[in-house]
Amino acid sequence: MKLLGIAMLLAASLCFAQDSSGFKPATSNVLDAQYPKVDANSRVEIRFKAPDANSVRVNFWSGPKAAMEKQPDGYWTFTTPPLAPGLHYYTIIVDGAEVSDPASTAYFGGSKWASAVEVPEAGADYYQPTNVPHGQVREVWYHSGVTETWRHALVYLPPGYDAQTKTRYPVLYLQHGGGEDETGWIRQGKANFILDNLIASGSTKPMIVVMANGYATRAGYVVPDLTGTPFGSTEFMIVMKERMGAFEDDMTQALIPFIDKTFRTIPDRDHRAMAGLSMGGMQTFQVTFDHLDLFSYIGGFSGAANPFMIGNSKLDTRTAFHGSMADPAAFAKRVHLLWIGVGTDEPPQMKTGLENLHAALDEGKVQHIFYESPGTNHEWQTWRRDLKDFAPRLFQAGNQAAMAAR
Amino acid sequence: MKLLGIAMLLAASLCFAQDSSGFKPATSNVLDAQYPKVDANSRVEIRFKAPDANSVRVNFWSGPKAAMEKQPDGYWTFTTPPLAPGLHYYTIIVDGAEVSDPASTAYFGGSKWASAVEVPEAGADYYQPTNVPHGQVREVWYHSGVTETWRHALVYLPPGYDAQTKTRYPVLYLQHGGGEDETGWIRQGKANFILDNLIASGSTKPMIVVMANGYATRAGYVVPDLTGTPFGSTEFMIVMKERMGAFEDDMTQALIPFIDKTFRTIPDRDHRAMAGLSMGGMQTFQVTFDHLDLFSYIGGFSGAANPFMIGNSKLDTRTAFHGSMADPAAFAKRVHLLWIGVGTDEPPQMKTGLENLHAALDEGKVQHIFYESPGTNHEWQTWRRDLKDFAPRLFQAGNQAAMAAR
Repeated sequence: MKLLGIAMLLAASLCFAQDSSGFKPATSNVLDAQYPKVDANSRVEIRFKAPDANSVRVNFWSGPKAAMEKQPDGYWTFTTPPLAPGLHYYTIIVDGAEVSDPASTAYFGGSKWASAVEVPEAGADYYQPTNVPHGQVREVWYHSGVTETWRHALVYLPPGYDAQTKTRYPVLYLQHGGGEDETGWIRQGKANFILDNLIASGSTKPMIVVMANGYATRAGYVVPDLTGTPFGSTEFMIVMKERMGAFEDDMTQALIPFIDKTFRTIPDRDHRAMAGLSMGGMQTFQVTFDHLDLFSYIGGFSGAANPFMIGNSKLDTRTAFHGSMADPAAFAKRVHLLWIGVGTDEPPQMKTGLENLHAALDEGKVQHIFYESPGTNHEWQTWRRDLKDFAPRLFQAGNQAAMAAR
Repeated sequence: MKLLGIAMLLAASLCFAQDSSGFKPATSNVLDAQYPKVDANSRVEIRFKAPDANSVRVNFWSGPKAAMEKQPDGYWTFTTPPLAPGLHYYTIIVDGAEVSDPASTAYFGGSKWASAVEVPEAGADYYQPTNVPHGQVREVWYHSGVTETWRHALVYLPPGYDAQTKTRYPVLYLQHGGGEDETGWIRQGKANFILDNLIASGSTKPMIVVMANGYATRAGYVVPDLTGTPFGSTEFMIVMKERMGAFEDDMTQALIPFIDKTFRTIPDRDHRAMAGLSMGGMQTFQVTFDHLDLFSYIGGFSGAANPFMIGNSKLDTRTAFHGSMADPAAFAKRVHLLWIGVGTDEPPQMKTGLENLHAALDEGKVQHIFYESPGTNHEWQTWRRDLKDFAPRLFQAGNQAAMAAR
């Protein structure tokens, strides 16, 4: 037998021991990859092989963008200054080609399978797999009469779901950001571990979490070729509005009925929440305020309030969101939680946008929670923290009292 | 509100309509990516942006390896001759840097998140999502006392599992190849759709399919730095043997007990099968023949028979596999199915290896199935076909008669 060749890929084994400089391989690396490395000061060392390149740059999407240095062995290297904790997307630009680092696990972001490096946060194990009961994440495929396609979603079921066959659970619909997909909250966000740990601590109700793909088009709709079409142009906005609307229809007409049929949910608005990050926050505000008959908990993580609904001017709570907030007392009875959050290091446009929304809600005396994640950018550590703050507030008695007391 | 920026990634929308040359975007592309394209003759057109590169090559792992042609717009292009049907891994080499194509879905193979293009097979919908009941794929995490880590596995549950709360199911353990991981059989292999379709046709018993990560090291073992260590060297083989053994222990001591505790299995050898592709086939032969008390169905897809067990000489069925085949009649009663398969276009070493194993089994009068996938290489279309042939033979009465009749 000469089948040894099939095991050749085992050959890339490399030593995992911490090197003398204190750098060790990131937990986000693929098996046996020594780089990227992270040190105790949260500096990241990147290494990339490109022996014949003239220029290699590293592009942290919310961090350093810099030339890498060519080494005699054909590798290019770069070490960052200390980074904020969390998962940082990056790409490598090789002679003008923007590509992913093959040493990194691929995470779907920026409409491609991008690289990212995990920088640990000292003392934070709320998103790690710890020694507590673990839920399951299920992949489901549902046929949508809106898109006329089979669509893929991920569903977190809390520990004990299989054993407690008479128990029904509330549901959180949790959406990814623009350029990401339904895998984001598990792969990048570690939402399953966050929920496992929160539920084990007793602070959070066991719940089902549904993560859908936020991109949809209605059957028969052909996305026009937008190459060269400026962002924000009329043509662009028409496509965006079409996709937002198709997603809303798919979610309310196909996904929610499928979930309520497939899992032991409590299928009413008092036990249904929706939240999302960035584009998913916009979608959350659109879907929930169009369907307050379906939802009573609303979360916008670094994104909220679709411009199609409120325009680009300052939010007027007397008229915005179909007038649902015009009577703040009635709104507080109807919507058990309105939650918005932003990282303090996010770009000014995002930060100001959320702060303005917060201010407008305050001015309109609309009960809500405003959460700021200290020192984090428009990145996953902000959204992990958001979920950690948001989830314990769901499906609990006394949310309104808590909001009123802030 | 100035939150429009968060939706910028929606802007990459491109037209999906088939172009005038008959090429259309591959189903394996990421959302909105126009390239790679495939035409009705199974030719693939690749496009890659690298405006400042001197040399860009495309590297199909089991296909063309060629220079791409630079276009005036900064893109490089290449069109393949007609390819075999199925999913073809490829990478792009930009001035010496081997990277993935950002337009492709990333599939874990070659120890990295690689590109691949799906070439349709005319008339073959057995691995497509069709209008039949769909099972679920669950992600589970189990703590292994062998590795002392939390390990991730995927578990396919057949349609009706949740509704038929009294039914128990047989289990197939199904392993990926070298350089791949537990996601391979779902993402690349479409094993869930294959099982959905087979079960719906009535040919195949509803079963649970467990897909584990084939890489394990025992707690405390530090993988030595093998940089520069030749494949097949003593140092290399020691690490490989260690990993194979750790996987065997993890599977039999941690994974199987976890699965039998977590799901409604029939936890005996008559209702437990194992199969794997390439390296996973080697692992299957090692694990099952070391534990015939646990398994009675065995499949090797383009890989079988660990060299540690049988050496590099021709298989002697009187002594190989702990002598379990020495009495072929007794073996046929004990092992309900011994199945090996190979693609007719696989590299000579692989093809000859499997043919020799087949011949040796015949010579030793050991009942088995030998399947050849016409016109396919060491790639996923071979393994999809393998599963389609293998799965219906599991957990059925009369397997031995069927094998005897061949």
